[in-house]
Amino acid sequence: MNVTIGVDVGGTNIVCGATDEAGKVLRKLKRPTEAHAGHEAVLGRIAEMVAQIREELGAGIRVTSVGVGIPGLVDPLAGVSKFAGNLKWRDIPVAGLLGEQIGLPVFIDNDVRMYIYGEAVAGAGRGYEHVLGITIGTGIAAAIVNGGELYYGHKALAGELGHVRMDGVEEDCACGLSGCLETVASASGLVRQAKKALREGRESLLNEWFPGEALEQLTAADLSKAMDAGDELAADIIVRAGRLNGRALAAAALVLSPDVIVVGGGGALAGERLMAPLREELYRLLLPDFREGLKVVTAEHNDDAGIIGSSLYAAHRNGA
Amino acid sequence: MNVTIGVDVGGTNIVCGATDEAGKVLRKLKRPTEAHAGHEAVLGRIAEMVAQIREELGAGIRVTSVGVGIPGLVDPLAGVSKFAGNLKWRDIPVAGLLGEQIGLPVFIDNDVRMYIYGEAVAGAGRGYEHVLGITIGTGIAAAIVNGGELYYGHKALAGELGHVRMDGVEEDCACGLSGCLETVASASGLVRQAKKALREGRESLLNEWFPGEALEQLTAADLSKAMDAGDELAADIIVRAGRLNGRALAAAALVLSPDVIVVGGGGALAGERLMAPLREELYRLLLPDFREGLKVVTAEHNDDAGIIGSSLYAAHRNGA
Repeated sequence: MNVTIGVDVGGTNIVCGATDEAGKVLRKLKRPTEAHAGHEAVLGRIAEMVAQIREELGAGIRVTSVGVGIPGLVDPLAGVSKFAGNLKWRDIPVAGLLGEQIGLPVFIDNDVRMYIYGEAVAGAGRGYEHVLGITIGTGIAAAIVNGGELYYGHKALAGELGHVRMDGVEEDCACGLSGCLETVASASGLVRQAKKALREGRESLLNEWFPGEALEQLTAADLSKAMDAGDELAADIIVRAGRLNGRALAAAALVLSPDVIVVGGGGALAGERLMAPLREELYRLLLPDFREGLKVVTAEHNDDAGIIGSSLYAAHRNGA
Repeated sequence: MNVTIGVDVGGTNIVCGATDEAGKVLRKLKRPTEAHAGHEAVLGRIAEMVAQIREELGAGIRVTSVGVGIPGLVDPLAGVSKFAGNLKWRDIPVAGLLGEQIGLPVFIDNDVRMYIYGEAVAGAGRGYEHVLGITIGTGIAAAIVNGGELYYGHKALAGELGHVRMDGVEEDCACGLSGCLETVASASGLVRQAKKALREGRESLLNEWFPGEALEQLTAADLSKAMDAGDELAADIIVRAGRLNGRALAAAALVLSPDVIVVGGGGALAGERLMAPLREELYRLLLPDFREGLKVVTAEHNDDAGIIGSSLYAAHRNGA
């Protein structure tokens, strides 16, 4: 039996897993990234994790290639991590360095593209020809998969939906622009807005749940809980984020004409609280011909989507 | 010598031309469409025009295929005009019907995609890998050409940039939505706004140039002339249209990452009056990595872009 290994390199943890060709996870490991130790240490750790998984899989199972999803700017053809702020990486030839260490072909790409690739071929986008995927997490990013092929664009920069300028949004973005979708409609954008409103004295259940210093612990999941308990502030923030995501997706959908939109990332865990206003705004802004053919779904493999996508992507590129 | 013929079917005229494989126009004919006579009469007329061009080209030149650009919704693979409002066509199998009459392979597509395809492979987009093209005319539409291949999306609907909802725009659109980009930023949108402002008593040179009933004759070209003569109303309308197009293109560019944006159609004849604010707004809203690699240019073959594109598209599909 042949399998591939997918690696998801985050700012906090590295997750590494072997999957079969249908994307079923056979083995999985998680270790802290400890990016401060430098890229050589991180790559060494990934090599160790890959070796351990191969050992656990046993002699009857052959690992044919490894896919690695990395945050930030990636040149997938050259196999280079161009810039990853979280990891403090710049122009690191990951595919080459790691390939030498583990003696297998290594393919790398941006983590969001890996995630959406996995959902497109073995998740919520399975069976659709034109997949537009979006991850709502710390930031917001999109990826496009047509007929099982990722869409890259010039310099592999395609998918920066999180930095589309939204009217009525004034917040400065870490990217240097202002009014970017992700400043208010990402999971961290939700939390930031809630903290700001609470500090400004807005009434909310969250004042009782997170008094004083405890407010620092507030997460997007807490906003969902507050919305379920009837909290107006939490509902306002989540519904607005849903609508803004819907509006940005409508613009993208009119240009791309996907047959499915897959919504993933931590923000998607808000479920229908976010998805209902997202769908409503999206469909409202689409031409009728688009509305009829377009499904909007949440990701299937939230936690494992990164390793499943990276693993299947490696299988795809290695076979191509 | 082998050549192909391109046909551009408009609401008013049919233009038909033979080009060589570099897109050079060798022969060209124009006839009124007379769509009221029905699709059989229009297709019969196209067949006559093709026959006349073949005769004029002489025996030494062999026509290998014909491409036809049709407004509205087209299924390019099935060769069917799904809906063309101007022509009152619905589900007309143009490629089959016309192919039988002229005894050559016929390939059809939407007229905007044909126009942009021609610009991408033999015009202002030549040499670029990821072309995003926009035509600013009666409406606004976009087309995407990657590595010489048109991008279609689900149901071949991709490219409806003219119907992206723009904040601050309230006009109802013919499509049934409101606030669509094309209501104010298309060539006809410019004229409509100018007429409305003049009827409401706004001061302008155009009041002298088009007194009373003469106002009906106002064109987008007149607005350019008025802007050159220092007219504030004309400048306001054209600059706003440029900015709005720039803003919609920025959203599309962040998702697609083109290396060139080609601006064509009658509206592009406004030149730098429109292009300067378009570029300024576009670049302002892009992430720095996008700005560096992205050129914004006007179309090269304004009048002939439709037949050049249709002709080269036929050659491409016939060879594929």
